[in-house]
Amino acid sequence: MNTQAVLSLDDARNLSVRVLTRHGFSAAQADSIAQVIVAGQRDECHSHGLYRLPGIVETVKKGKADPAAVPDVSDHAPGVVRVDARRGFSPLAFDLGLPLLVEKTRRQGIAALAINHCFHFTALWPEVEAIASEGLAGLAMTPSHSWVAPAGGRLPVFGTNPIAFAWPRPQGHPFVFDFATSAIARGDIELHHRDGKPLQPGWAIDAEGNPTTDPAAALDGAMLTFGGHKGSALAAMVELLAGPLIGDLTSTASQAFDDGAKVAPLHGELILAFDPALFPGAGAPENTERAEALFTAIVDQGARLPSQRRFAARTRSDASGVHIPQTLHDTLVALAK
Amino acid sequence: MNTQAVLSLDDARNLSVRVLTRHGFSAAQADSIAQVIVAGQRDECHSHGLYRLPGIVETVKKGKADPAAVPDVSDHAPGVVRVDARRGFSPLAFDLGLPLLVEKTRRQGIAALAINHCFHFTALWPEVEAIASEGLAGLAMTPSHSWVAPAGGRLPVFGTNPIAFAWPRPQGHPFVFDFATSAIARGDIELHHRDGKPLQPGWAIDAEGNPTTDPAAALDGAMLTFGGHKGSALAAMVELLAGPLIGDLTSTASQAFDDGAKVAPLHGELILAFDPALFPGAGAPENTERAEALFTAIVDQGARLPSQRRFAARTRSDASGVHIPQTLHDTLVALAK
Repeated sequence: MNTQAVLSLDDARNLSVRVLTRHGFSAAQADSIAQVIVAGQRDECHSHGLYRLPGIVETVKKGKADPAAVPDVSDHAPGVVRVDARRGFSPLAFDLGLPLLVEKTRRQGIAALAINHCFHFTALWPEVEAIASEGLAGLAMTPSHSWVAPAGGRLPVFGTNPIAFAWPRPQGHPFVFDFATSAIARGDIELHHRDGKPLQPGWAIDAEGNPTTDPAAALDGAMLTFGGHKGSALAAMVELLAGPLIGDLTSTASQAFDDGAKVAPLHGELILAFDPALFPGAGAPENTERAEALFTAIVDQGARLPSQRRFAARTRSDASGVHIPQTLHDTLVALAK
Repeated sequence: MNTQAVLSLDDARNLSVRVLTRHGFSAAQADSIAQVIVAGQRDECHSHGLYRLPGIVETVKKGKADPAAVPDVSDHAPGVVRVDARRGFSPLAFDLGLPLLVEKTRRQGIAALAINHCFHFTALWPEVEAIASEGLAGLAMTPSHSWVAPAGGRLPVFGTNPIAFAWPRPQGHPFVFDFATSAIARGDIELHHRDGKPLQPGWAIDAEGNPTTDPAAALDGAMLTFGGHKGSALAAMVELLAGPLIGDLTSTASQAFDDGAKVAPLHGELILAFDPALFPGAGAPENTERAEALFTAIVDQGARLPSQRRFAARTRSDASGVHIPQTLHDTLVALAK
């Protein structure tokens, strides 16, 4: 029996806020987190939807995260905004840093937002979409916990290290992608383990470094990056730019800080924004036309743009609400009491 | 009989300069191009070495490129340097733009160099290495000609769209990668065609969109990106950031400009630089230690850092010169006359 509960977006948001404030989150923290979680549910990214709430509460219960942290925004350099999340979760830190990032980008052409000391559980597309809604292009990246082996190796070094990008379009949704540089999400390995299903080849290796499709062996071994040595190189870049560049932890250092608690990772995040109006050729209509011609050339041959499925889910959810398993709904209602 | 000619680095540079100046290149253009070509040969990236010279000369002979172009450097925005290459080749444009990029990066924390209207044939690692030698991190990308189909499609839209990154290290060579977002280089497909060798699966599709290992069918069809839909998403990002963002051509538009001449592509390039000294945590020794710990964790398990083979070749060539086929040497000597 997989009965489903149907919630309006407002109901989903209110329930999320109630769960969070019941566990010590400040109103500001709860609002920012609920916004991101409901956006994930709305877009049918179930692994980043309401399902995340129990884990977020757990991260606080274990004493790692500060649910009432007040992020500190500072004007760090002409092209760099810094937000110290002070061991709170990332969404409020991003929301508070965004206005200064946008302002700097509109002045400099390009600027960076460095978020430090944040617990991170969200997808990155809500952030780059927020940047695109300002008419800017956005690029975001963050390490996680060291679960992923480098190409040619057998021991975990990298996190799942996602990269997300958004490009504003004159009509409709922006061009957006958001993917892990690991072959697959960590949660997928765990779901296959729970369900006793074999992994696909290329996702993981066992503790001896041999390819494996056994989820238990993969959890003892390491995940692989997507795209062989190229994905591995990108994963290293994410570690460097969203770690040492911004004075924060690599995935290995973040894992060490976690110290077996298995909660959301604590580390940094780097977000870049570009203002097309301050780059060469600004305002030339053929630039917008060239970008749109690229998208047309992809769609017209029957290929999909990244995020196309997500935007279709958004339209459905805006019209008729979100569906979550009744058991999850029961858990959340209990957590809100 | 594969006899080899051995040249010192100085001899290789002088021969390259003679070939170029003999065909109308200004001294400044010839010097910058020779520098990059000899660096490619020195690092045993043969496809970016002296082998390129006949093609460069051909691009000029066909009337596409201006061998005496004087690039125009402008201070476009606080965070953006623009160099109009004026239909010359990219190396001199980069060399002339670099000092202002470095200056801006040291002031802003992050800055961009947009090169417009350049003919492009080089690897990107010489550029990001030059940025790293200033103590900055560098990220470069450029489109090419539309040879590569998007994930799920069958018609070429993207170029081979390389991405290169460098991170400065306190000792020795920087951490550097430089890879095409296509599964393989265009030149490799052409070499397999010439030699009658089958392609590896996953490199290309035929004109109907079916997987093929036949190089002729691949040349009529399309190349594929590395890493499936993730590589395809990155290829699109390169088109947007190094095309419409900077007022320049996508790979499809560049191919149209080429109009069957089959010479080096004309388009733009985007290069970003980051100054760790202006990001949070600057000067904290643990940041350098964390980055170095990442490299140690990769190398100590027997995996390679990207560019490790290239740096080994550099050491060999610095000691004993470069080896090129005698036939290529004969061609170059004839071109220099």
